[in-house]
Amino acid sequence: MSTQNDFAPIVGQTQLSSVDGQAGRLAIRGYPIEELAGRVTYEEAAYLLWYGELPDTMALTDFAGQLASRRSLHPASLELLKACAAERVAPIDAIGMAVGTLGLGVAQDDAPMTLVARFPTLVAACWRLLNGHAPLEPRLDLGHAANYLFLLDGRLPSAGRVKAVETYLVTLIDHGISASTFAARVIVSTQSDVVAALAGAVGALKGPLHGGAPGPTLQMLLEIGSLDRVESYLRDRLARGKRLMGFGHRDYKVRDPRCDVLAAAAQAVYQAEQNVATYALARRVEEVAVRLLAAYKPGRRLYANVEFYASLLMHGAGLPAELFTPTFAVARAAGWVAHCLEQQRANRMLQPQTVYTGPQGRRWIPLEQRPAVRRTQLP
Amino acid sequence: MSTQNDFAPIVGQTQLSSVDGQAGRLAIRGYPIEELAGRVTYEEAAYLLWYGELPDTMALTDFAGQLASRRSLHPASLELLKACAAERVAPIDAIGMAVGTLGLGVAQDDAPMTLVARFPTLVAACWRLLNGHAPLEPRLDLGHAANYLFLLDGRLPSAGRVKAVETYLVTLIDHGISASTFAARVIVSTQSDVVAALAGAVGALKGPLHGGAPGPTLQMLLEIGSLDRVESYLRDRLARGKRLMGFGHRDYKVRDPRCDVLAAAAQAVYQAEQNVATYALARRVEEVAVRLLAAYKPGRRLYANVEFYASLLMHGAGLPAELFTPTFAVARAAGWVAHCLEQQRANRMLQPQTVYTGPQGRRWIPLEQRPAVRRTQLP
Repeated sequence: MSTQNDFAPIVGQTQLSSVDGQAGRLAIRGYPIEELAGRVTYEEAAYLLWYGELPDTMALTDFAGQLASRRSLHPASLELLKACAAERVAPIDAIGMAVGTLGLGVAQDDAPMTLVARFPTLVAACWRLLNGHAPLEPRLDLGHAANYLFLLDGRLPSAGRVKAVETYLVTLIDHGISASTFAARVIVSTQSDVVAALAGAVGALKGPLHGGAPGPTLQMLLEIGSLDRVESYLRDRLARGKRLMGFGHRDYKVRDPRCDVLAAAAQAVYQAEQNVATYALARRVEEVAVRLLAAYKPGRRLYANVEFYASLLMHGAGLPAELFTPTFAVARAAGWVAHCLEQQRANRMLQPQTVYTGPQGRRWIPLEQRPAVRRTQLP
Repeated sequence: MSTQNDFAPIVGQTQLSSVDGQAGRLAIRGYPIEELAGRVTYEEAAYLLWYGELPDTMALTDFAGQLASRRSLHPASLELLKACAAERVAPIDAIGMAVGTLGLGVAQDDAPMTLVARFPTLVAACWRLLNGHAPLEPRLDLGHAANYLFLLDGRLPSAGRVKAVETYLVTLIDHGISASTFAARVIVSTQSDVVAALAGAVGALKGPLHGGAPGPTLQMLLEIGSLDRVESYLRDRLARGKRLMGFGHRDYKVRDPRCDVLAAAAQAVYQAEQNVATYALARRVEEVAVRLLAAYKPGRRLYANVEFYASLLMHGAGLPAELFTPTFAVARAAGWVAHCLEQQRANRMLQPQTVYTGPQGRRWIPLEQRPAVRRTQLP
């Protein structure tokens, strides 16, 4: 235990990414997200986050090769996923359980690379086992995004699907100090390790307030089904006091800056898959929803959030809704690792000052003399 | 995602326990720790933390029975521990990996009880597998502390050892919002689950700045070995600028209030085991260390911390040093769960405001046109 007492209110400081919720801007290492998304691979974005610069060709080749060579899982990870499949554990919960095993047989120094490399393999193996299929061996000749798609169904993905998923992974790679990132930083701040920190991060991510509920956004879209039902469906939902899924964000008071890049990538993949109707439907839903929200909830400034176009894009790229949150974790893995490395350099334990608000000065009474307690449910 | 923006500096509020670092006081639900330690069982202390009152006889019998009936592990937990043993993973790391599996086959509502009930089984199974022994089946007729000791070596523990370990478990059951507790609260604050939160908590606990380095304290004591070597050993260590293990605490500027109760329990167990010399040595080390620290580090106010007497006690009760941190986790399990339940009621996402301090406004350059990057080690 430390002998310091240097408490300061815990405000996250970072040089990794910046979020401006009023202006609607997100930048990774100073690059606005629209400079990167659709232009760089996930490997390039991860390199940028970790080293502060976009890689040149040689550095990128080396980095991507290092990642590719670390993709295979430890057998114990697969065994645990099998047990989870037998118990019908939801993918994100199974992945949360299994993240800790990604460190098996890996030296501490090698954990950052290995965690990021193995994450897509873990998600894909989880999904295949849950559906009664044997996991596949990673392809070393494919990039991070393409290999992820290959591992899910064993088919070489189309360039369009790869581009869509790559854009998603880059766009979601980091977002300031979110709750999951904060959990990871609290954990490494005790000088614990990066594997433990990522397990904690996935634990936080899977909560519905964070990344754990993207399915309903797509479900709402599919329920609406056609352009002529948009206005009546949304009005009915608002009239019944229900939330419009995919709108409003705790940080952004304007349209989420990730919407544009994800919408562009979604448009491309729906065109490639010859399903422009679904894309057109989503654009109409956004347009009508923003208008209705301004009328029904004046002053609240509710706009499309990242989930709205992320779920549209992932659906278009052929990812099942159960993998939306796990794929969010695949994307954020490099960001979490970057924050762990940054926190390790800061070398300050993240622990809040405690204010106690309960009773004081009570005295123990022997068991037999205690007054009867009122039996209650767990508090 | 929430649409709120109610950020406030994150200062932990709790009604579970209070820490007064200036006066050296710790109270659980308003009971000073010295009112409870040595007087109540772990089950009573857990009940107190969760429900706010010490149980009466009927409530305690019911609660203890509920816990006892939930002690057996899911087979997948054992499989994972076997894989960890094969890889020679340190107990606390293996336990960190396996905590997530404690939720397998358990309904959400049943997780708090089950987590606490299964924790000693997990630690003992981990230890036995690492040492080439088959795990044992929990004994339903034993209390929480006695069952833990039984599961380690298959022998019915003496009353003295049970009392010592019980006192340790009660004394360490909660301590305001420590880093591990904070990690757990951040995780459940996204509406994630208690199992995920405890996995994160163990991840934080195992960091050397938190609970991950209690071994060296005992090692220092054993190195000193005899009363006549105390002063010269400690002077030599201080002269070489090395820390005295087991002294100084980030919260306490006086003697850690847990020292008294742990020292008393340690004295009893060393007497029972007819090894009073080691206990006497520890008392002398504290006395001399405090005197020397005041001279060598004036104004720093360094006193014995919880680790000093905790490691003495656990050694006296026959626990190996590799299990000191895992046993800390066994103790804190009920505290972590209590904080998760409290955080769930608070229903506020714990996420710090981010201050970005890196470069801004950068523009993407195509890969081939980028300047050569300087190859660096990971930041």
